[in-house]
Amino acid sequence: MIRVWIAGATGYAGAELVRLLLGHPQVTVVGLASERHGGLPVAAALPGLAGVADDLVLHEGVLPPAGLRADAALLALPPGPAMTAVPGLLEAGVRVVDLGPDFRLGDPETYFAWYGRQHQAPALLGRAVYGLPEWFGDALPGARLVANPGCYPTAAVLAAGPLVRAGLAAPDGIIVDAKSGLSGAGRSPAAELHFAEANENVRAYQVGGTHRHTPEIEQALEHLAGRRVRVTFTPHLVPMTRGILATLYASLNRPIDVAGLVEIYRAAYAGAPFVRVLDPGRLPATKAVLGSNFCDLGLAVDGRTGRAVVLAALDNLGKGAAGQAIQNLNLMFGLAETAGLRLAAVYP
Amino acid sequence: MIRVWIAGATGYAGAELVRLLLGHPQVTVVGLASERHGGLPVAAALPGLAGVADDLVLHEGVLPPAGLRADAALLALPPGPAMTAVPGLLEAGVRVVDLGPDFRLGDPETYFAWYGRQHQAPALLGRAVYGLPEWFGDALPGARLVANPGCYPTAAVLAAGPLVRAGLAAPDGIIVDAKSGLSGAGRSPAAELHFAEANENVRAYQVGGTHRHTPEIEQALEHLAGRRVRVTFTPHLVPMTRGILATLYASLNRPIDVAGLVEIYRAAYAGAPFVRVLDPGRLPATKAVLGSNFCDLGLAVDGRTGRAVVLAALDNLGKGAAGQAIQNLNLMFGLAETAGLRLAAVYP
Amino acid sequence: MIRVWIAGATGYAGAELVRLLLGHPQVTVVGLASERHGGLPVAAALPGLAGVADDLVLHEGVLPPAGLRADAALLALPPGPAMTAVPGLLEAGVRVVDLGPDFRLGDPETYFAWYGRQHQAPALLGRAVYGLPEWFGDALPGARLVANPGCYPTAAVLAAGPLVRAGLAAPDGIIVDAKSGLSGAGRSPAAELHFAEANENVRAYQVGGTHRHTPEIEQALEHLAGRRVRVTFTPHLVPMTRGILATLYASLNRPIDVAGLVEIYRAAYAGAPFVRVLDPGRLPATKAVLGSNFCDLGLAVDGRTGRAVVLAALDNLGKGAAGQAIQNLNLMFGLAETAGLRLAAVYP
Amino acid sequence: MIRVWIAGATGYAGAELVRLLLGHPQVTVVGLASERHGGLPVAAALPGLAGVADDLVLHEGVLPPAGLRADAALLALPPGPAMTAVPGLLEAGVRVVDLGPDFRLGDPETYFAWYGRQHQAPALLGRAVYGLPEWFGDALPGARLVANPGCYPTAAVLAAGPLVRAGLAAPDGIIVDAKSGLSGAGRSPAAELHFAEANENVRAYQVGGTHRHTPEIEQALEHLAGRRVRVTFTPHLVPMTRGILATLYASLNRPIDVAGLVEIYRAAYAGAPFVRVLDPGRLPATKAVLGSNFCDLGLAVDGRTGRAVVLAALDNLGKGAAGQAIQNLNLMFGLAETAGLRLAAVYP
Repeated sequence: MIRVWIAGATGYAGAELVRLLLGHPQVTVVGLASERHGGLPVAAALPGLAGVADDLVLHEGVLPPAGLRADAALLALPPGPAMTAVPGLLEAGVRVVDLGPDFRLGDPETYFAWYGRQHQAPALLGRAVYGLPEWFGDALPGARLVANPGCYPTAAVLAAGPLVRAGLAAPDGIIVDAKSGLSGAGRSPAAELHFAEANENVRAYQVGGTHRHTPEIEQALEHLAGRRVRVTFTPHLVPMTRGILATLYASLNRPIDVAGLVEIYRAAYAGAPFVRVLDPGRLPATKAVLGSNFCDLGLAVDGRTGRAVVLAALDNLGKGAAGQAIQNLNLMFGLAETAGLRLAAVYP
Repeated sequence: MIRVWIAGATGYAGAELVRLLLGHPQVTVVGLASERHGGLPVAAALPGLAGVADDLVLHEGVLPPAGLRADAALLALPPGPAMTAVPGLLEAGVRVVDLGPDFRLGDPETYFAWYGRQHQAPALLGRAVYGLPEWFGDALPGARLVANPGCYPTAAVLAAGPLVRAGLAAPDGIIVDAKSGLSGAGRSPAAELHFAEANENVRAYQVGGTHRHTPEIEQALEHLAGRRVRVTFTPHLVPMTRGILATLYASLNRPIDVAGLVEIYRAAYAGAPFVRVLDPGRLPATKAVLGSNFCDLGLAVDGRTGRAVVLAALDNLGKGAAGQAIQNLNLMFGLAETAGLRLAAVYP
Repeated sequence: MIRVWIAGATGYAGAELVRLLLGHPQVTVVGLASERHGGLPVAAALPGLAGVADDLVLHEGVLPPAGLRADAALLALPPGPAMTAVPGLLEAGVRVVDLGPDFRLGDPETYFAWYGRQHQAPALLGRAVYGLPEWFGDALPGARLVANPGCYPTAAVLAAGPLVRAGLAAPDGIIVDAKSGLSGAGRSPAAELHFAEANENVRAYQVGGTHRHTPEIEQALEHLAGRRVRVTFTPHLVPMTRGILATLYASLNRPIDVAGLVEIYRAAYAGAPFVRVLDPGRLPATKAVLGSNFCDLGLAVDGRTGRAVVLAALDNLGKGAAGQAIQNLNLMFGLAETAGLRLAAVYP
Repeated sequence: MIRVWIAGATGYAGAELVRLLLGHPQVTVVGLASERHGGLPVAAALPGLAGVADDLVLHEGVLPPAGLRADAALLALPPGPAMTAVPGLLEAGVRVVDLGPDFRLGDPETYFAWYGRQHQAPALLGRAVYGLPEWFGDALPGARLVANPGCYPTAAVLAAGPLVRAGLAAPDGIIVDAKSGLSGAGRSPAAELHFAEANENVRAYQVGGTHRHTPEIEQALEHLAGRRVRVTFTPHLVPMTRGILATLYASLNRPIDVAGLVEIYRAAYAGAPFVRVLDPGRLPATKAVLGSNFCDLGLAVDGRTGRAVVLAALDNLGKGAAGQAIQNLNLMFGLAETAGLRLAAVYP
């Protein structure tokens, strides 16, 4: 059994880690930490866990207490604390999957430009594996530090990857218009996340290429394209709890029909158990992936304008966060990629 | 492995059976049937199952095809077809959990009065076990036919049971005001279930003691009370997908405080792994049971009016249907009561 | 034109006052105040008012600035500030409709018991008119201080009034189970009002007769009954923005059928333009009153248990707050009761 | 008073026409027709109108009955019946605003290509005014037949118009990604509009430039550009009742900053009372226009990719249908453009 420590366990991504790992046959959760609820029994902060995980308590802070042995730490933290904690964890022999953004960007200057703070562990940036298994999975077995992708970049890169890799898309002609449920904005109350404000409301935020996931998307696609890529990315909030639907527009370099696209995508994701490329004419919906680790892809071609339209649906807390972190954990430790993750979506 | 056949597999309760049983370590789903989608691959009717249950196909009708051997049949059907199918299943040695209402009422005349049709297998009524394990579980081991309770009766009887059993509640002074998500109304489109009509809307239906779950609640409580019980039951639809919150009002026969009530309830449900009696001052919420098999109970006393107020929260497709059916299946076949059901709620 | 001042204009009830009064043919809004947004243009706090009320600015505090003449002040404030402000307003000749609770309870000791603070203007309690026009409207013409009822009491008293007045209901046998949209909890962010927590969730709060609207309901019903009345009142939050559905249960003193009840209710509300008593068999829904000043009443009799079930639907910000305040204003100033309020519900 | 006849009065757009016109000071609704509810009192089909419009009854069919005199007919019908009815109405001297698509496309062959049926009144196509007053309003005074734009085209053309007119956008580089509430799909129940399916779900439909609003958007923009325009348009359904947010992406022909864009948009809409161009940095939200006739526009520039991002929010039943129809009616008959439409959004 792999002994796992979870920091940030009472945020939404952390809570999903706990929920999923309780059903993982080869993982034991040995401890949880919560900045806000440290010291409480877990069911006080996460009432749904009563009767399921009564033996777990919430520690304070980020690091496991002395004497608690863990093989891996899963960090579900805001920008900052992870890059302070990771060096010590690695030195102590604890392997890390960081669900936050601190180790996603390879270049400390890019990190500074987008996150407005100096990176505290720049030497580790080059050693972190970008944990999108479908494209960067070869580096995962044995990896000690994995940067789990952001929810939007997971959808965007899975949607764009085959096009970009095949050289089908103009590298400056990619637009990603993403619609997210409100759990993506976290558990802290805020005016614009207040039910009566967010319900029956749709709005964009951080428009004009200013969202921090933009450089992450571009970095991943540049690896696949082997050249510079520029993306216009616009996130939106829609009145639901979970789910992301990303709509990708790409100018095609050469004519292709939907069947051709589907073929390319199915080849690209042939060995990927969590990517479902839908038949021509079928379109994804977030409900079909709710609570699961799947990303569904639907393809269309707008022949009149020469564009491909790619739809990607995932659960922002599943394949967009906790599910993918467990997928990474599995691959790091040589387990089956799908261990603990063969869950059907909750329906309806 | 217990081989299970599911009829009505593409309705909401049926789909939840499939989702849950795919994770059950001692059950194999050997076949599915669907009146509406018979002949299609399962993912055509239930897209979330693609990649999870690709080998399953949807048969037509209700009965397993010749040659398909099943140990148990789970029937998630509207009133009618189950009572026609059950005799043959039992004769063929297939044990049955009927999620529909056909075998819940012990008396064929009561069935006729509330369902408007003659019962087709009245001889079996006396042999069906009412599958609410927390109160009628002793009869489950070895049972061949189990009538899985309705979603509202499950909430109502779990909420009222300890009060009634202890003789604390006046038997004609019980009111159950239930609020249900719209999946409880089924998968068939209808004007009042149309999104733009049901969203941002709350309404009652079948008011004045006319809902068919009324005699079922009374029958179960009369077993516990050992005397006649009359309940005023009012169902409401609230704009969410899953979940029932039932608010029970009971005139107390003698003064008692909340702590005393909690003690009585905890004693009543001491061995029940899926009933969580909350601490005094805590109140249940449907979100804390979403996707799980738990029923959360919260207690209060209105000292000014001498009434107990009991809140019960469950997932109408979990403990209110599919989860409870699997709990019954486990007990019928001598498995651990919690097998395949130790799932934390989906949060948020 | 009646010159109106609105304090608390950027809370939900205040904003609804502004929205409705902008369409009132005999009222001019001469000024707005906002504790939180004072000093800003109104559209900064209420973006929907851009282009509609650009000339209005938000003052700080509660009282009109020197030099601003108002005939009436509408106060949409939390408990406390209104009772400090009202004496001065009345002395200055400004008539007041207080949408908050400070002047609803006639007895300062009851106020202290339920609100936990000493009343600052006890002498005015006896002079305030309880502004439920359907039952207490005779006192409104010429009134100088009107206490606008709470949202729940409006629903409860309109639902129970005819029964209680006619002596049909046992005075200790009334239960009110109310379901409210989340705007009823106000505009301030809070953990349990966070979208991802409140969405897909139903829960009760302040159970066991502890909600402050309880004594208000009882006081009004005691006026109608001419004797002591005790009510069990339970509020619930359901995942929608606006609307209250209150379900009232009353033990009947004598047998009566639905047609008889409808007749009694229609007689009681014969002159009431905003109460719609539905035909037997029809049930109210909050969507049918959304954005309007109507309260819809539906009636049923549970003959098996001898109880009446009365359903009341209203918009908590309409008839439950701002609409009713304007109805009161109209009657205080001798305008038509329906002036500015003949609005159909927003549908769907 | 202008006497108005409404056909299709019990669909969502028709019901909104009734709601809005009941408050219009210079219009009388003289009759309503409903295919589905013909013969019933209006409150049977639209319960919110009880007590507001009790004198109205629902006629069958599309045309006013003999003897009923109307100055204008507003048709809220699916494709087909309008083109059959309009010639007779015009001959009878009744001026028409058609909220359906039959007269929006100028070319009968384009109509055939996208709607799959032969146009029945091709001679009228050239005489219909496209009723987007902000761009085509000069032709409205005195017009006899006005084709009210589709909901998506209204958002798209208001968002793109100033860019296209100023020659700032590459005519083949426009993408419109629209998110609509579900009332846009109409009142008829359907599987994908069933609450439990549509709630907590986001999906696209008619992807790849196949939605019928595509040629309508292009036709309008070509008028403004004076040259061929090709648009990639993708509609999505999000789980709310009302509202459209359209996100437009346009490749800029020359560098411009947000302040410059705002200036161009404010100049373009200087005389338009229902278009609100937000300050730089502010973004529109559908809630701020709910129930109103406003369209809010927000602007951003993605300097890294040379694209403008324009956000347009409107109520699909307001400015996207009924509100705009009344705006057109006002201008046809020489009334103030804002008559009956100076309504603030319903908030929250």
